[in-house]
Amino acid sequence: MLYLYHGTTSVCSVKVRVVLDDKGLNFDGELLDLRRGDQHKPDYVKLNPNHVVPTLVHDGKIILESTLIMEYLDETFPTPPLMPRDPYQRAIARLWMKKIDDYLHPDCSTLTYAIVFRPVFLALDQEERERRLAAVPDPAKRERQRLSIEMGLQAPHVAAAARGHEKYIGEMEAALSRSPYLAGDDYSLADAAATPYVFRAEKLGLEKLWQDRRPHVTDWYARIKARPSFASAVINWLTEVDLKRYAAKDEPWPTFSAIVART
Amino acid sequence: MLYLYHGTTSVCSVKVRVVLDDKGLNFDGELLDLRRGDQHKPDYVKLNPNHVVPTLVHDGKIILESTLIMEYLDETFPTPPLMPRDPYQRAIARLWMKKIDDYLHPDCSTLTYAIVFRPVFLALDQEERERRLAAVPDPAKRERQRLSIEMGLQAPHVAAAARGHEKYIGEMEAALSRSPYLAGDDYSLADAAATPYVFRAEKLGLEKLWQDRRPHVTDWYARIKARPSFASAVINWLTEVDLKRYAAKDEPWPTFSAIVART
Repeated sequence: MLYLYHGTTSVCSVKVRVVLDDKGLNFDGELLDLRRGDQHKPDYVKLNPNHVVPTLVHDGKIILESTLIMEYLDETFPTPPLMPRDPYQRAIARLWMKKIDDYLHPDCSTLTYAIVFRPVFLALDQEERERRLAAVPDPAKRERQRLSIEMGLQAPHVAAAARGHEKYIGEMEAALSRSPYLAGDDYSLADAAATPYVFRAEKLGLEKLWQDRRPHVTDWYARIKARPSFASAVINWLTEVDLKRYAAKDEPWPTFSAIVART
Repeated sequence: MLYLYHGTTSVCSVKVRVVLDDKGLNFDGELLDLRRGDQHKPDYVKLNPNHVVPTLVHDGKIILESTLIMEYLDETFPTPPLMPRDPYQRAIARLWMKKIDDYLHPDCSTLTYAIVFRPVFLALDQEERERRLAAVPDPAKRERQRLSIEMGLQAPHVAAAARGHEKYIGEMEAALSRSPYLAGDDYSLADAAATPYVFRAEKLGLEKLWQDRRPHVTDWYARIKARPSFASAVINWLTEVDLKRYAAKDEPWPTFSAIVART
């Protein structure tokens, strides 16, 4: 049995749901409320000592880290294959995923806190806010969250997060001008991994990262949205609360584009 | 042809050399002097925009990122296999490598700067030191290097780096108490990847991380040192300058262990 601990909007959870759906795999599981701090509960931390989602449990085997879960699913359920056959193209696919792990994911988290979670946290009383921040085990991550909440897009590390998005989407444009998908002719784990980050950028009001500027990313994203897994793994999980949070934000593009232009 | 851009002591270069040697592969290549800043030269940055070693060029194809180079070599030259066959064991092997990418590598770099590169940089005049730091493109990495050089083991981020080493070696001990190698019964890319970090800890004077405390790591490391690739990929590349730098350090263990005990 495939059992997934995940979150409705969590980018890393979405990556794994996309692959499960692309493979036609059914799964059971439970949704954690990450704003409430479910990922810090002792029983969950026994499964996932990093206090993050997703965690996949497959017939009793615990698999951590969304990038590794994606590779595990592709190796365990090889049809349809979601990695190129050629080792060099496989290295290219993995490089897209590694760049997400190395910078796009923390940059996405920074922007999400600064744009949509900030009001959620500011509405809490000081003590409760401190309690939730104190539960984040990685001190660097905790400090980034604190600054994003306190200062929004004016937080000092937002500039690097904005540049990170500009860079990744720019590299996608270059790659997609050479081939229809990120790692060549066929859709792969690289495209599945990038999907929730582009979707998140759109929900954060940053769709001008590609609209009217990067035609190949625009075209790729239209093709991604037309895949059945986009509805079933991305859209159908969003709750009314999620949608309200995304809708309630201030228009971030003027500030965001000024930051990118400055650096 | 396999052509490797690498450094004599660079941990990520050593990982790849170990795999090349384990596979019995010959390679050509060039050594970059990382203290002099060869990795920032425009011609090299065209190959590797991250300003780091190693870079592998195989029959004209450029492969970046040591972890991905290791997987590429294993997939391209499958004999002897250096990844388990079972997908779950493969996920375990990859998790060891991912933890290196996520924290052990930057933590190792922090300790190396604080313990052995600090005197090298302090011997430069202020202008030259600033010039070399300014060439590091990642601002977070640049700031870590600066603090390690200015403050040595007293730099604020050294505590996390010390804890990172204690955690990784501690997790190695737990795994090696269950199986002879990190990902099961057979030596794998996970062991190859961990090798240069354990070797570096030893050269930094931190061998008490395992000696007399962690018998399974001690035994594993003795077996690793007995492999032919340890001499040919790790030891034989060290120059007299490298060995002098390692020898010139102040004894770091009292400070290091006090930091770990405090946190």
